[in-house]
Amino acid sequence: MLTLAVFSLLLHFAIQASSPLDQVFHYIDEHQDDYVQRLKEWIAIQSESGNPTKREDVIRMMQVVGEMIKHLGGTVELTDVGNEEFADGKIIPLPPVVLGELGKDPNKTTVGIYGHVDVQPAKIEDGWSTDPYLLTEKDGNLYGRGSSDDKGPVLAWLHAIEAFQALNQELPVNLKFIFEGMEESGSKGLDELLKEKNETFLSNIDYIVISDSAWLSKKPALTYGTRGLCYFLVEVQCANQDLHSGLYGGTVHEAMTDLIALLDSLVNSTGYILIPGIDSDVMPLTDEERVLYEGIEFNLEAFKRTLDITELLHKTKVTTYLHGVFAARGSPNRLRVALEYGSKAWVTNFTDKQYDAGRRAIRKVFGTEADLIREGGTIPVARTLQHTTQKSVMMLPIGGADDGIHSQNEKLSRNSYINGTKLLAAYIAEISQF
Amino acid sequence: MLTLAVFSLLLHFAIQASSPLDQVFHYIDEHQDDYVQRLKEWIAIQSESGNPTKREDVIRMMQVVGEMIKHLGGTVELTDVGNEEFADGKIIPLPPVVLGELGKDPNKTTVGIYGHVDVQPAKIEDGWSTDPYLLTEKDGNLYGRGSSDDKGPVLAWLHAIEAFQALNQELPVNLKFIFEGMEESGSKGLDELLKEKNETFLSNIDYIVISDSAWLSKKPALTYGTRGLCYFLVEVQCANQDLHSGLYGGTVHEAMTDLIALLDSLVNSTGYILIPGIDSDVMPLTDEERVLYEGIEFNLEAFKRTLDITELLHKTKVTTYLHGVFAARGSPNRLRVALEYGSKAWVTNFTDKQYDAGRRAIRKVFGTEADLIREGGTIPVARTLQHTTQKSVMMLPIGGADDGIHSQNEKLSRNSYINGTKLLAAYIAEISQF
Repeated sequence: MLTLAVFSLLLHFAIQASSPLDQVFHYIDEHQDDYVQRLKEWIAIQSESGNPTKREDVIRMMQVVGEMIKHLGGTVELTDVGNEEFADGKIIPLPPVVLGELGKDPNKTTVGIYGHVDVQPAKIEDGWSTDPYLLTEKDGNLYGRGSSDDKGPVLAWLHAIEAFQALNQELPVNLKFIFEGMEESGSKGLDELLKEKNETFLSNIDYIVISDSAWLSKKPALTYGTRGLCYFLVEVQCANQDLHSGLYGGTVHEAMTDLIALLDSLVNSTGYILIPGIDSDVMPLTDEERVLYEGIEFNLEAFKRTLDITELLHKTKVTTYLHGVFAARGSPNRLRVALEYGSKAWVTNFTDKQYDAGRRAIRKVFGTEADLIREGGTIPVARTLQHTTQKSVMMLPIGGADDGIHSQNEKLSRNSYINGTKLLAAYIAEISQF
Repeated sequence: MLTLAVFSLLLHFAIQASSPLDQVFHYIDEHQDDYVQRLKEWIAIQSESGNPTKREDVIRMMQVVGEMIKHLGGTVELTDVGNEEFADGKIIPLPPVVLGELGKDPNKTTVGIYGHVDVQPAKIEDGWSTDPYLLTEKDGNLYGRGSSDDKGPVLAWLHAIEAFQALNQELPVNLKFIFEGMEESGSKGLDELLKEKNETFLSNIDYIVISDSAWLSKKPALTYGTRGLCYFLVEVQCANQDLHSGLYGGTVHEAMTDLIALLDSLVNSTGYILIPGIDSDVMPLTDEERVLYEGIEFNLEAFKRTLDITELLHKTKVTTYLHGVFAARGSPNRLRVALEYGSKAWVTNFTDKQYDAGRRAIRKVFGTEADLIREGGTIPVARTLQHTTQKSVMMLPIGGADDGIHSQNEKLSRNSYINGTKLLAAYIAEISQF
């Protein structure tokens, strides 16, 4: 009996190992060195969107992405989204947005995948241990600018698809790709393009998935919210021209002194925001979320001051408050407070079919439950895509919280990269069942 | 009798008009358009010492100055003072210092003249009404970067000498010139050169005169003191690398919040410095100075907070004070306070023969008494020259307090330029009598 039981167990494993998705996982494991090599080629393209002198590199990066989608059998449009104009009058073209399409079966679910292949600036003299544009593997980590944010995840999607095809497995979904090259610089041109394409390219998308964030704990995450941002410009004007400190110092009310006092009035030494009434704009945590968060294997103490602002209602409050602080100083200078840039927060329903598919994919690859989290980063495209298409948007990150995105020594671990590729393949399989 | 008295008066004027110095004054008036033209040529050379890409312009400017001294019959050495090294490892040559000599008569007084021909940066987009490098005359003012600080005054010296020579008047003094091209960038290389030349080039100088400051009121000034400076670097370190605000915002003690609070603790809203004990380092005004200052036609209220720090004794006080403020905040971040750069104040005896010569020259040209003032600008070479040579140092400014040096729309009035040239000629005549 014992022998028979063991045989039965082995048979069970053998059957599992031969499932189509397991074959995909096996293929991904076998080809991981190829994936690292391709990431190395992408990292070598210095696609810094914030640096006008590197615009040609960003454009080249978009072409490389487009070619890879064509290689997978897709159709691609490198969509012109106009020019970028600088304060000095210089005008250069924005990098095109890659709109790609793979599969048009009306009986299949259509998934829209968003990603970006531009990067933050990186110089070795900022404190990198290795050349940021030469992917370097050390202790299981792949170091390089864009490895985690967001070239690695974009490649993981394309490699997952490639794996299905290499095994002659029919892709169970239609795919549409929206890959941009200006994400690190305010996604210039993208919002207008998405609105313009809502009735055409975007119209038949069922689900939108984004891999451009990170896990929060050691467990895989699904992200259902992002923070908003509001940048205010506070300007104090003392005179109509520069004043030599030697001629005027000590005789005029210096604008810098006023400005520092105003800034010092905003936050206390424990990080508490001192603007009266600002807390009333913070959306309270729901009981459902509270339960979710208790399951996250993370020291919540460290995050206890996380605030998600639901709407940009603070303009009046900030302005009124700072004008009050300024008036109390009795300075003769002129104060201007203006909202310079804002990005709304995003939060969505995390109990729909797509999130179910995400949870199941995570269980399949990692054998664990997903953390359901909100993200501290501002990824405005999530909100834009949801509001434009009115479809479910989910973030399915593959990077780790310690990847150092936007920082020195950005990395993606080889495990995250390869298991992430499996996760995206599993998601494709799971979402196809709806 | 009446007729005779009038005749006598006329004769007296006629005799005055024919005095050698009056002839010089007349020559200067007649040639003022030439002087403006030459200033235009000098302003056109963009000799910004703080901009490494304009180093060639600064070097060319030094050559132009050297050529002009040679043209006046002087000997010139364009003295190499080494290289400038930047944080990024780039090394470029410092502009040479022009050491010039005109006249070696052992029976004459030898005057050393210091000036500089480099300038602060200037761009029309900073708010200039005219091209800063195209000298433009409007409403009696000559607008252009360096017109007042310090190309105009250097040219005034050379034109005063040229006027004596054009009239075949023997120069009543020997002259030595020290003209540099790094004054606006910390006079790099100059201190070492002056120390090195103390026993040779500088050894037989009797008086040192500097025209690189401004009048305080509508009356001409002699300047017998300058302020000192101390720059402190206050650094608060939160982490060992950049932190993405979305991942870490609200969870860490932000260094910027601590830094702003520290800066806000230094000065109150009325400009009072809050560092305990700092007032005890301010040298009190002497009774003699108080009398001098009462005669200045200037609203002293506006200058009531002027402080001249006599010695750089504050390092310990600033450090102790800021560490105390920081400790009271209870922040876990690391604080560093360091004196980065300092320049000692200068003050000298204003009752010596050179100051007498200056007062008499002002009476002769302007028919008024001089303001005796201290200067808010930091002109460290005054102290260096006095301490190195142990000779009398005087500042003899020709520019106005409203010239806007270091600012937009820097100007020198045509009157200041031409009457200043006469003043320097008169000074040469007066100082020769000692």
